Amino acid sequence: MSEVGLTAGVLGGLGPDATVDFMSRVIALTPASTDQDHVRLLVDQNPRVPDRQDAILRNGESPGPVLAAMAAGLEAAGADFVVMPCNTAHAFEADIVGAISIPFISIVDASIESLPVGVTAVGLLETPACSQLNLYGAALSERGLRQVSLEGDEREELMRLVYAIKGGDRVGPVRSAMKNLAVALASRGAEAIISGCTEVPLVLADKDIDVSLISSTEALARETIAIARGEHPLPTT
Amino acid sequence: MSEVGLTAGVLGGLGPDATVDFMSRVIALTPASTDQDHVRLLVDQNPRVPDRQDAILRNGESPGPVLAAMAAGLEAAGADFVVMPCNTAHAFEADIVGAISIPFISIVDASIESLPVGVTAVGLLETPACSQLNLYGAALSERGLRQVSLEGDEREELMRLVYAIKGGDRVGPVRSAMKNLAVALASRGAEAIISGCTEVPLVLADKDIDVSLISSTEALARETIAIARGEHPLPTT
Repeated sequence: MSEVGLTAGVLGGLGPDATVDFMSRVIALTPASTDQDHVRLLVDQNPRVPDRQDAILRNGESPGPVLAAMAAGLEAAGADFVVMPCNTAHAFEADIVGAISIPFISIVDASIESLPVGVTAVGLLETPACSQLNLYGAALSERGLRQVSLEGDEREELMRLVYAIKGGDRVGPVRSAMKNLAVALASRGAEAIISGCTEVPLVLADKDIDVSLISSTEALARETIAIARGEHPLPTT
Repeated sequence: MSEVGLTAGVLGGLGPDATVDFMSRVIALTPASTDQDHVRLLVDQNPRVPDRQDAILRNGESPGPVLAAMAAGLEAAGADFVVMPCNTAHAFEADIVGAISIPFISIVDASIESLPVGVTAVGLLETPACSQLNLYGAALSERGLRQVSLEGDEREELMRLVYAIKGGDRVGPVRSAMKNLAVALASRGAEAIISGCTEVPLVLADKDIDVSLISSTEALARETIAIARGEHPLPTT
């Protein structure tokens, strides 16, 4: 049996397919030839977390308490650190961190650290709630990077596509509409684009556009593997 | 928010891709248009369960104690019932059931109950360990159904393919070799075939062969959804 690494707790179900996509990428990106080489994940695939857009944009029920309870449950079950393959829900990071004594690894930080060296302007495919909270914007500013945002109707279009993907629609029109949003960001100067919503990589791949596309899901998967395997240090809490 | 259903605990990682395939099927087969409509799963994706073939065929370390501890952990974390998307590991069902006070739903029973009405001879794509333990054979006999088994070199060929799939190889030669095994079972009279190893549906689909192919993974996913949504009763323990 291989050396036992650290166990990642996964706050999942936001949405369920994005969680499965995250798990698939963890498997695919782990150097493994047998079952026993893989990374251990404890996953709470809980689809009944209140809607994040509703909470942030329309004063709906906060997902904070549910996420905090889920995170505490993962710690109790043996997780060494916690990740969440949903960007918008990082608005409730404080609730999560306050409920656990193990580290929480941010998808925003993992994504920004995955940007190619030399990039100065970064396009953001993010939800309106994510944008309003400036989750990526603030982190880019700190690093002296310029953000290129969706504008006007593009924001509502992104959200329409995200809900379509959550509803299981991933066919041609959804894919080409998502690509059009990425192309618009590139046309306004983005040298790289972050898929800052974990539904986006379900319909848009790096090969679909001319500039670098950073999948936030894949960035978080790589960081999860690196920490679980001891290649990156576990941050202190 | 939708009515909250029951939570399924998932003994996962045997192998990791089969677990992800199971989760994907649960999502795809659930009538859902929003995140909140889905079934809650607590998943222990633990790749470090000792090898099942080694344990059964070569007196290797038993996975029983690890599976029992995982099942107890899932119950403590809030699962209402436990499932395991791995057929061979059902050899250790007694260890699992002995460790929990919630029901364990068998993939063998779920698969056999998914057989088309009127079938009398059932082909089994199962591992040598599964075959030696007669997990499917006994359940088919109880129902008066004839089993059509892999013979001679076919058994080792199935196992070679399963390990190739676990190693990430799912390209043409593996797919066609798996199809050949199914065709051999059909040629010996199987009217339906059970993919009695959760790696098999990763390379073989119903459309690939002329007789009905029952994916044990999909059968377990359907039963999980039915119980979680209250459409099938939770068995008593």
